[in-house]
Order: sequence, then C-alpha cells, then structure tokens
Amino acid sequence: MTTLAQQYSITQEPFYQQQSNEVALYEAAYKARLPVMVKGPTGCGKSRFIEYMAWKLGKPLITVACNEDMTASDLVGRYLLEANGTRWLDGPLTTAARIGAICYLDEIVEARQDTTVVIHPLTDHRRQLPIDKKGELLQAHPDFQLVISYNPGYQSLMKDLKQSTKQRFVGFDFDYPAPELEARIIATETGIPLADATRLVKVGGVARALKGHGLDEGISTRLLVYAATLINGAVAPTDACRMALVRPITDDADIRATLDHAVDAIFG
Amino acid sequence: MTTLAQQYSITQEPFYQQQSNEVALYEAAYKARLPVMVKGPTGCGKSRFIEYMAWKLGKPLITVACNEDMTASDLVGRYLLEANGTRWLDGPLTTAARIGAICYLDEIVEARQDTTVVIHPLTDHRRQLPIDKKGELLQAHPDFQLVISYNPGYQSLMKDLKQSTKQRFVGFDFDYPAPELEARIIATETGIPLADATRLVKVGGVARALKGHGLDEGISTRLLVYAATLINGAVAPTDACRMALVRPITDDADIRATLDHAVDAIFG
Amino acid sequence: MTTLAQQYSITQEPFYQQQSNEVALYEAAYKARLPVMVKGPTGCGKSRFIEYMAWKLGKPLITVACNEDMTASDLVGRYLLEANGTRWLDGPLTTAARIGAICYLDEIVEARQDTTVVIHPLTDHRRQLPIDKKGELLQAHPDFQLVISYNPGYQSLMKDLKQSTKQRFVGFDFDYPAPELEARIIATETGIPLADATRLVKVGGVARALKGHGLDEGISTRLLVYAATLINGAVAPTDACRMALVRPITDDADIRATLDHAVDAIFG
Amino acid sequence: MTTLAQQYSITQEPFYQQQSNEVALYEAAYKARLPVMVKGPTGCGKSRFIEYMAWKLGKPLITVACNEDMTASDLVGRYLLEANGTRWLDGPLTTAARIGAICYLDEIVEARQDTTVVIHPLTDHRRQLPIDKKGELLQAHPDFQLVISYNPGYQSLMKDLKQSTKQRFVGFDFDYPAPELEARIIATETGIPLADATRLVKVGGVARALKGHGLDEGISTRLLVYAATLINGAVAPTDACRMALVRPITDDADIRATLDHAVDAIFG
Amino acid sequence: MTTLAQQYSITQEPFYQQQSNEVALYEAAYKARLPVMVKGPTGCGKSRFIEYMAWKLGKPLITVACNEDMTASDLVGRYLLEANGTRWLDGPLTTAARIGAICYLDEIVEARQDTTVVIHPLTDHRRQLPIDKKGELLQAHPDFQLVISYNPGYQSLMKDLKQSTKQRFVGFDFDYPAPELEARIIATETGIPLADATRLVKVGGVARALKGHGLDEGISTRLLVYAATLINGAVAPTDACRMALVRPITDDADIRATLDHAVDAIFG
Amino acid sequence: MTTLAQQYSITQEPFYQQQSNEVALYEAAYKARLPVMVKGPTGCGKSRFIEYMAWKLGKPLITVACNEDMTASDLVGRYLLEANGTRWLDGPLTTAARIGAICYLDEIVEARQDTTVVIHPLTDHRRQLPIDKKGELLQAHPDFQLVISYNPGYQSLMKDLKQSTKQRFVGFDFDYPAPELEARIIATETGIPLADATRLVKVGGVARALKGHGLDEGISTRLLVYAATLINGAVAPTDACRMALVRPITDDADIRATLDHAVDAIFG
Repeated sequence: MTTLAQQYSITQEPFYQQQSNEVALYEAAYKARLPVMVKGPTGCGKSRFIEYMAWKLGKPLITVACNEDMTASDLVGRYLLEANGTRWLDGPLTTAARIGAICYLDEIVEARQDTTVVIHPLTDHRRQLPIDKKGELLQAHPDFQLVISYNPGYQSLMKDLKQSTKQRFVGFDFDYPAPELEARIIATETGIPLADATRLVKVGGVARALKGHGLDEGISTRLLVYAATLINGAVAPTDACRMALVRPITDDADIRATLDHAVDAIFG
Repeated sequence: MTTLAQQYSITQEPFYQQQSNEVALYEAAYKARLPVMVKGPTGCGKSRFIEYMAWKLGKPLITVACNEDMTASDLVGRYLLEANGTRWLDGPLTTAARIGAICYLDEIVEARQDTTVVIHPLTDHRRQLPIDKKGELLQAHPDFQLVISYNPGYQSLMKDLKQSTKQRFVGFDFDYPAPELEARIIATETGIPLADATRLVKVGGVARALKGHGLDEGISTRLLVYAATLINGAVAPTDACRMALVRPITDDADIRATLDHAVDAIFG
Repeated sequence: MTTLAQQYSITQEPFYQQQSNEVALYEAAYKARLPVMVKGPTGCGKSRFIEYMAWKLGKPLITVACNEDMTASDLVGRYLLEANGTRWLDGPLTTAARIGAICYLDEIVEARQDTTVVIHPLTDHRRQLPIDKKGELLQAHPDFQLVISYNPGYQSLMKDLKQSTKQRFVGFDFDYPAPELEARIIATETGIPLADATRLVKVGGVARALKGHGLDEGISTRLLVYAATLINGAVAPTDACRMALVRPITDDADIRATLDHAVDAIFG
Repeated sequence: MTTLAQQYSITQEPFYQQQSNEVALYEAAYKARLPVMVKGPTGCGKSRFIEYMAWKLGKPLITVACNEDMTASDLVGRYLLEANGTRWLDGPLTTAARIGAICYLDEIVEARQDTTVVIHPLTDHRRQLPIDKKGELLQAHPDFQLVISYNPGYQSLMKDLKQSTKQRFVGFDFDYPAPELEARIIATETGIPLADATRLVKVGGVARALKGHGLDEGISTRLLVYAATLINGAVAPTDACRMALVRPITDDADIRATLDHAVDAIFG
Repeated sequence: MTTLAQQYSITQEPFYQQQSNEVALYEAAYKARLPVMVKGPTGCGKSRFIEYMAWKLGKPLITVACNEDMTASDLVGRYLLEANGTRWLDGPLTTAARIGAICYLDEIVEARQDTTVVIHPLTDHRRQLPIDKKGELLQAHPDFQLVISYNPGYQSLMKDLKQSTKQRFVGFDFDYPAPELEARIIATETGIPLADATRLVKVGGVARALKGHGLDEGISTRLLVYAATLINGAVAPTDACRMALVRPITDDADIRATLDHAVDAIFG
Repeated sequence: MTTLAQQYSITQEPFYQQQSNEVALYEAAYKARLPVMVKGPTGCGKSRFIEYMAWKLGKPLITVACNEDMTASDLVGRYLLEANGTRWLDGPLTTAARIGAICYLDEIVEARQDTTVVIHPLTDHRRQLPIDKKGELLQAHPDFQLVISYNPGYQSLMKDLKQSTKQRFVGFDFDYPAPELEARIIATETGIPLADATRLVKVGGVARALKGHGLDEGISTRLLVYAATLINGAVAPTDACRMALVRPITDDADIRATLDHAVDAIFG
C-alpha cells in the first residue's frame, strides 16, 4: 500500500496564496473528516487549493476529472479479463478509501447520477463503500476524505446535484483573487514585472465585467498566467493578450473588438 | 451463510430518538413481513430509523443506494468470468433474500423500471425471486423483509413509482424532528451546548420555511450536525453555519443573503 | 423435463373467489389453446386468477414480470460462457413452450417491442418459437398456452400494444370484487371479523370513487388485506388504514385529508 | 444443406382461398425472382398467402418477425464464442440466401434502418449479400426470393420505408375477404354452421366501419376464427364475441357499448 | 492479396448507357485520384455507373450500403476472438485501401458521423487510414479511390454531410435518362418491344411530374424495368404497371387513382 | 520508442505559405508548451499549418479526427484480449504523451465530453494523463504538446467547448489566404498557369461572399486545388469548376445558377 500512497503524495509545496481563512476552515473540516464541496468559476484556483491542502496535511491526493460518460465502475473498479480468469482492479475512489487519500472529484455535476450516488455511503456516518461486484463492504481508511468541485455557472435545470447529495458536504466558495494579489501571483509564477502583471489583471477585469453580458465566464487566472508566459517569451504583449486572453474565450466579433480595444488601451 | 449475515448485522445500537409510535408500527409490519415504504425529505433520519429497527429486531441489514443507471442485474446478480468458466455472484437483493436480511433500497424512484419490477414477486404472497439467468426460483428466507425509501419532493411526472409497485407496501411518513427533540439530538451527537444546538435548529427553521419559496429542500438534520461538529472544532459559529448550512444548499444570492442574515441575527 | 414441470407446478389450491363465469370461459379458451389477455386495475386479482386456473388445469405456470429493459433474449434464452465454451440457457418463454406450461407475461405493455413481437409466431396457427441464436425452430408443447396481463389505466400514446399483437388474444376483463364478496375474501384470508372487513371495503370504495379525480388508481384488494393483517396484529384500525391504505397511494395533502377523514368516520 | 431446406419446407397445404388473380401474379413475380411487398391490415391473411405460395412453389419459407430492436446481425449472422474460439452462425436471411428459400420479413417497417439497408444488394441485379463480418460476399441461390410485409395503417412520419427501399419491390395489396368468402373461410376452418359464421362476419363489418372513427384497426379474420372456435367449444355466441372480438381491440367504453350492442342485435 | 482483388473485380461489362461526358470526367477524376461524390434520385443508375467505371478502369470495386447503425469499426475493421486469442479482420474500407480498389460508400448520409469522419485522412493529400485499434497508419494503395453517393432529396436539417466532409469530393449529378434513351435501355435489358417500353416511360413521366406534389420521389428506371420484366412474363401490362409502378411507391388513394388512370390511358 | 516517433515524424517539408507572424507565435507557444487551439473555416489550411510546424520543430505529429462516437478509450487506450490474457494498447493521446509528439485533435467540438475532459490534466501545470484503467499516472514527455482545431461556424448551442476546456488554450485564428497568395499557392501546388489560378480564386471569392446568404461555408482552398488539378488533367475549366467547386457544396438551384453563371463569366 505504501507505494500507492507515495505515488499520489504531493512532494513539492504547490504555489498557493491564501485569500482569507480558508486554510484553517479546511483543516477544521478535515479534522472532522467532513466531506467538502469547493465552488467557483473556471481557473480561479480550486484545484490548486485542494492540492495545497493535501500537501499541507501530508495526505495523498487522487484527482478524478468527472464527465458525463463516466460510470460508477470507473470510480469503484472493475474486473479485468486475464490469462488466468479475471482480476479485480480498484478504481480511484476505492483506492483513495483504502489508502486514506483525499479523493477529489473535479466537476462532479458533469458525472452521471450513478457516479454521484455511489459516494453517498462514504459521506455519512457509515463511511463505507459497498463494492457490490466484489461482494465487499469497504470501511474507509480513517484518513480518507472526499472533496468535490462544482461550478455554479454551469448549474442548469438539466444538470444539478440532487439535494440528497448536496446536503452531505460543507461548502467553500472561491472567486478570482483580488487585483493586487492576482498580479503578485502572476508575477511570482512567471517572472514578468509586476507592472505588466497588473496590466494583465486589468484586462482580466474588463472581461470579468462582461460576464453575463456576452461572455459566459470571465478570463481565468490561468489564462492571465499564459499571457504572462508568452510575454516572458518575447511575444509582444498585445499579441500575447490576443492569443491567450481574447481568442480562446469568444468568437463574438463585438466582444472581441471590445476586448482588443481594452488590450490596446492598457498596453498601448 | 453465517458470515454474510454477520457482515451485515448492526453490532452497535444506532443513535435513534423515537418521534411517535413508529417503532411499534414497524414491529407490527415486520411481524407480518409486510414490505415497508419510508417517505420524507433528505437527511431527516429515514436511513437511521431502518438501521435502528434492524438492530432492534436483530436482523442483518443490506442497503442499496439506487440510481438511474442501476440494472436489475446489479440487484439480482450476475455471472463473472473466471479461469474455470463463469461463477455466479449473488446481488444484494438475492443475498438478503437468502440470508433473511432486511433489504433497504434507498431512493428507489431513482432506479430504472426493471429494478422496481424485479421486486414485485418478493412483495406479494409468493415471496419469490425468479433468478432467470440461473434458472433458479428463490424462495425468500422467512426473516427477509423489503424496505424502500421515497422522497415525495422529488416525485415528478417523469419519475414516480407505478401504482402497481406502490400498492405493495405499507407506508411510514417522516419529517424533521420537532425543535426541542432536534436540538437534543444535535447536542447529544456532537457534544455542543444545548443552547448552541437550539440556535442551529432555529437557523434550520428559517431555511425550512423557505422550502418552495426559493429552496427545493430545507436544511437537513445532518447538516445541522455538521455545523455543530465544526463549532465543536473551534470554528466560529457564523463561519460554521455558512460552510455547513448555507453554501451547500443554494447558489441564489438573495436566499444566501436571507440565510446569512438569519445566522448573524441568531448567533450575533 | 419432469423436474422443471414440477418446479413450476402449483401444489396448493390458491384462494380464489369466482366473480362470474370466468373459470368456464377460461377453460374453453385453454381447450382451444387460444392465447389469453387479462385486463384490469392493479391488485384486483388478475395474477391470482391465472395461478388458480393453472392449479385447476394441473399445468405448470411460469410467470415473467415484464419491464422496459427486458430484451427478447431475457424471454427466449442466451448462451452462457463456461469453461468448455458456451452453454445455451433457455429463457422462461422457451422453457414454457418446451414443457407445456402456461406462460404468464405480467404487464406486457411495459416490455420493449422485441419482447412483444417474439411471441407472435407462438400465438397463431404455427405455435412455433424461432430461436434464431440457436438456429432452432421450436414447436410448442401441446399443453403450452400464453397469457398476458394488461392494465388499461396505464395505456398511453407512448406505450400500447400494437393491434397486430392485440388481435392474437381473447380478452378477460377484471375489476375489484363486489363489496360483500371483497369483505368475505378479506375476512377469510386474514381472520379479522367480517364487520371490520366490511369497514375496510368501505374505505376502499371511497378511494376508488376518487380515481380520475386526484387518484391514478383506487385502493387494491391487496392493500385492504395488508390493513386487515395489521389490525390482526393489534395495530389500531385507524393507524392500520393510514399505513396500508392512505400513505402508499398518494402524497397529495387534500386527497390524504379526504381519505383520513373517511377512515376516521368509518372506524371512529 | 438438405436438412435446413427440409426444416423450413411447408409439408401440408395451408388453407388459402384465392381472392383474385394474386396467385398467378405472384408466380410471375417469383419466376423473375422480383422482390415482393405485401401490404394490408393486421390479420387479413398476408402471412397465410406467402405460406401458401411457398407450399405451391415447393420452396422452403423462412419467416422473421421484425421489431425495432432487431439489428442487421440478427438477420445476417454473428460469431458465437465457443470452447475452440468463435463459430459463425448464419442468420435467417443468410440461411435463406444460401439454401434458396423464400425469406419473409414480416412488418419490415418496425425494423431499424440497418436491417432494411442490409437487404438492398439482395434486391437488385447483384443478388448478393455482403457478410462484412466474415469477409464473405454471398451470391444468392437461384431459388432465393425476398418478401416483405407492410401495414400502411402503421405508416407514420417516424416510421416508413425509404423510397430507395420501396423501389426495389413489386407490390400486392390485401384486404379482408369479401363477406361471403370470409364466412365460408370461417365455417371451413372451425366447423361452425355457415349461419353463425355469417353473423360473425356481420360483427366484423360493424367494427371495420369504425376504423378511423375510434378504432385503429378493424376486427381481423383471425379474431373471427377465434370467436368461432369458442362457439364451437360450447361458449355462448355473445360471450364468445365479447371475449374474442370486443375486449381485445379496445378499452374505449363508447366503442365497446356500440360493439356489444351490435353483438346482441346480431346474435340475439 | 491477388485473391481479394479478384473477388471484387467486375468480370463482365455492366450494361451502361452514357448520358453525357460523365465517363471522360470520371476518368480525369480517377487519374488524379480525386474522391468522387455521385448525386441523384433513387434508382437512376448511380451504382450502375460506378460499377461500369470500375470495370472500364479494371479496378476492383468494394461497395458498402451505409446505414445509421454502422460504426467506424464496420468500415475499418475489428478484432475477432479466436481459439488462440484475437485476430484482426480488415473492414471493407481498409481492404479497399490495401488492395487498391474503388471503395463505394452508398448513401453515405445515412451513416453516423464517426463513419464519415473516418474517411477524412483518406481524402486529402495524406491518403492515410489510421487504424487506431491496431496502432497502424495505413498508406493507401496508389490505385485506391473513394466514391460516395448522396441523394439530395433526403437531405434534411437532421441528416446532411458536414461541409468539412463535402469539401473533400468532386461531384457528379445524375438524373433519370432522357425518355428515348430510357425506353431503349428498358427494351434492351428486358427484350420487350420498344413501343411498350416507350409506354412505360410515359407512365414514369407522369409519376415524376408528381414529385413534390404528393410523391416523395418519382418512379425509378429500376421499377420500369420490373414492369417490363412482368410484361415479358405474360402479365397484362396494366397489372404489371399496378404491381411494379403504383403499389410500391404510394398508399395515398388520390395519387394511386391518378397513376392508375394514367396506366389505363397509356396502355388502354 | 524510437520507431513510433519515426513513424509519426514528418520527413518532407509540407508546402506552407506564411500569412502573418503565426510561425513565430507558434514557436513561442511551443517553447512554453502551451496548449494551442487553431480556429477557422473548413479547408483553409489549419491542418497543413500544424503539419508544417511539426516538421519545422522536428517533432512527431499524431493526428486524430474527432467524432461524436469517439470515447475517451479511443484516445487513451484499451485492453485487448489475447491468447495469454489481455494486452494494453496505448491510444493516440497516450502515445503522443509518451514519445513527446504534438497531438492534434482535429474538430474537437465533434467529440463527446468525456473525450474533452480527458485532456484537462494534460493541459494545466500537472501535464499528467491518468490512465485509470491501468492504474497508471503518466507524466507527459517534455516535448509533448496538445493542439486542437475548432470551426467557429459549427459552434451551436448544442455543441460547444466548455469554458473550463477553452480556458486551457492559447488561440490562433485562420482564414482563407489573401487572393494573390491563394492564387500563387494553387499555381505552385498544381502547375496550372497563374492566370487560371487567379480565375479560380475569383470563383472562390464569389462563393465566399455568399456565406451566410445561402451557403453554410465558402469554397475552400482545397476545392480550388481540386479544380486546378482537373484543369491540369485536360478537363475544360468550366466542367472542372462545376465538378469541383459547385456541385459538392450545394444542392440549392438558385445558388447553383449564381455560381455557374460566375464560372461562365470568369472563364468564358
């Protein structure tokens, strides 16, 4: 088991800037092993936060990117056919429950219902995972914790968690970092001057103000880091902004013009 | 067979506070082996009640969290391919019928119809489970009983039990415990002072009053226990309430403001 | 073959009260081996009638609860993978055709079309079952008869038998027994006094009058028997009626109030 | 091959009454091996006609009841897993093309499109069946002919043959036999007096006049034969008519009253 | 490989009457190995033209009738399970690319998208077929050419080729032959007098004028040949026309009357 | 591994005409290994550009044509059943991540969501591919880069990338080359006189002006090259234009007339 735990442990401290008292609150939730739900827009640092907490708590982290074609078997495990009959292969959720890892189900709303229901007995006082196909009732390792992420912007009539699932978690809200903090994050991560990073954050601010007015989602911190990376690679800042901030997020000619204009004004 | 029965028996008395004469009524239903349907909102204690009754009656309990991708084979069993051909593996319903367990199908409306129809011959005078794939007609153990849970709040035109299924069960209605009782439950389970527990129940009351007016479902007893656990872990009560009671259940800004305001007023 | 026939034979006379001349008519249909369709609401005794006729005629009875996920293979049979290759396993319809049983397909409208079409050659002058996967053309045993049940209340635009299927059967209509008869049935089956049974039938009558006016279906004879069983187990009649007659069939507050009121008036 | 041909040959002359010159026309179509489409309402004798022609021409007949879950593999064949690897099993269409049988695809519109497209190369000058999964290009036996049946009453926007399929067949229209002929058919098949048979045909006439006015389809000749069979088995004619003619085809109370009244008037 | 090429080569010159300069244009397209799309109504001779060109160019022809249940594996190939593990079986497209055949995908719009996308790398400068399941990147044989057929009449919002597929082909339009030519084709193919063939073409003309006015598609040349075949088999011309031209293409009573009237007028 | 890298390396310089500074920008993006999204209409040279960059950077290129039936397993890999049990076969994405290739997912919007989600961990700071079915967490080769293409014209409410996917890429916009450049490309690739190539580009311009006014998409550079190829093969220019430019892209009679007229005017 040691090897699996080692394979999934975070060996280097991930770069993470605390925004409020979220680290202490998470530690309290982990101490009681309460299941955690992190909410917030794309690319604002949800996954980075969980990675950081796993590193800080010294627990292995198993991440699963959920999708609508994922089945319960993809999480729990399946039998593989081999030369000498079948061999059982634990899925990532089962592995996490066995070795005492933090299991992070990214974008859980994308998954089919059987995937969300399978976590129920792991998220109440039972902390059990019934592996029906093996006839095994797995009692979770004392260190095991379940974390899910959730983007409220995607929430629609068609796809939402059931209340009977939601009411098994404590929640953390995330948003883009405050401007000064975000500029410092960008400068630290990429090495560009703080002045340029501040300009990039301004471009981000323009796009985020357009959310709901022609844009589904603002520009993420990740894309700002991409633009900074290109600038660091000697690409002209206006080219870098167009490539990394404008073209990926919209094909609408008006919005593009607005954003291009903002880029020229800020970097001109 | 003894081992399976032992694996599923409840060895410690589950914490359960009787609300009315439901324990005696359940005992009468079990004595006649009538199939039981328990109804009520999320997290009000339905599963805990069945666990308690299984413990009280000294019968093993096999719980299945139903979901829309579950097939009849997931309940009844399937053939596994092995080195020396195939081996039959009983599903949880078959196991329960063989060893005389209480089989609890949680959130049965979520399941596909083939799952609900498969229980029909187990719920009339026949008490049989035809295992077509094995060519076996299993007569249920005299101790076997079937229990299903059902959340009327979810009931829609698309998903409801057929009358031919419903009319095979006697019904128990559940709701959140009365305020004083609920406060006592929370204080007993988590160890926080009764005064704090009473305040948490008041927050719960505000949210439950919003059901149908912006909330699909009120705050469950389980979430109140989560908040109490965090308070017990030295988290500030207002933080604990936001994390455990407000953020998980809604993303609506107005409802959040109302609930946050209530939290501040009650704990301020 | 003898063993299979024995496994499915009805060894004890099922309790059945004739309502009209349906037993003689069924005997005439069986004599000509005409396929039979029994229609009527949930829990009015359709399955019990077929069980009784199978016992009276001394023929084995194979019952299949149809559902929308059932495939033709579930009826006809399939190959199982074994150590020495594959082994064919007859499905229940094939078994019935081989051993000369009465095959009863319960709630046939629920099944997918391939299931309903597969019975066509068994229901005309050919009386054959082509088992394409085996390359076998099975001639039905002279004693074989096909019976289907059908609940007209469920019949919708989406789910109905095709006329080319319907026009292969002679039909029997069923309904709840007349009040006096139903009371006698309940008293005989459960041992409660006839006066109580008569009161239960009155409650049933109230609910049946609400069919189409807020209830999809009236209270079945089966539920009345459940209530009588609870009364026999020392449960208060009003509690027994609420558990067995009111809660299972509706969550509508108005209808519940009406029924509860009727229960109190009748048993008060 | 001889055995397969024998298994599917019609050894006894089927009872068939010619209605016009359809036998001669069919013989001309068969002589040129033109694919044939027979159209008409349920139970009017389409299948019986093809059976008769197969007997008259001395060719084996392979009948397939089409349904919406049928795949091309169900027609063409598939590999079966066996102890020594896989074994190919010809489907009914392939068998018919190999042994020179008449292949009758009953209710072809019910089938999925891949089933209808698979017959294309067999129905033009190529007379070939590409068995892609085997890598075989099967040249049809010179005696092979393809026949499909088609009920125009079912034809809807959702389910209809494509013109590129239709335009590969010559067509035969069928309808219920003329009254005198139909009465004679019924009397001959069941042995009841011609007077009773004539009365049954009158009932049939009433129902057929209601087609499109509350009935999807008239009463078929097959059901009239059922009623006659019951009368022959000493069932009262009015009971026989209700069981065989009224109850199977409709649950509409008004239509039932109309038909019951007609039965009473005709047999009273 | 020689044997496969022989199996698919056209050994006898197919009967084909050139309508314009389409033979020379096809030869130019084949010389540059440009992918070809042939468009036109049902039964106007598209398939016959490709067969003729394959014969004329001396290349093997592999034809695939596309349908909506066809998968990419049906075209590219799959692994078969055998006694000694799995064996790869090339699909028709792979076979054609290996042996240098003309691969003709008939009615490509019927196929699912994965089938149409799989041909992309074969239809640009790469002329490659990636066989992902084998890990093979097949370079097409220099003689390989891809041809698809397409019936614009079927083109709907739901089913149409994507522009990224369309823009990989050069196109040929087909229509019914001019009247004199069509009469000559019919007389030559079936041996009936040219006068009768001319009358049949007149009937065809009436139906084709009704296209879009009650008929989805006109009468194809193939059906005219069927009618001529029946006339040649001593069937009365009016009977032959009804069987081969009227009944297969429509069930509309008015259109049938119009066409029957035309038949009587032309052959009367 | 060397062999796989060689199999996918571009050995000859692909013909590519730079339109702006896209080559330098791509090199900057590749240097930072940023994931790249190329956008633009069908056949404007997106795939050619990526092929050129792979050649210029000396990296192997693995191209996958995405489609709606493609599963995550098609990208990541699967177990194959063999004589001695199962063997794992890397999918194209896994192969690219292992050998350090550029992986080009063509028309990514066509793919199902599980395919797009599977690339997430490869496109952030982790650069990992979890191969759940093998229990392997693959760290991408330092040379690995992911490229996707995207046709904004296809973008609809039903099919669009999620923002959480989009915001992982830097973007390149493509369009048809400017007229003089396009004419030079055509003349260079096919060898026809520049005057003829210029005329073809004029025809293309007429069609591109009709985009959104009856045409879904303009004529691609690829089709202009096809027409030039036919002209080079001695086909009359007007015939070549009809075959290669008009017939493939539309069946609308008016648009065809407009385009045919333009062809006659330009080449007349």
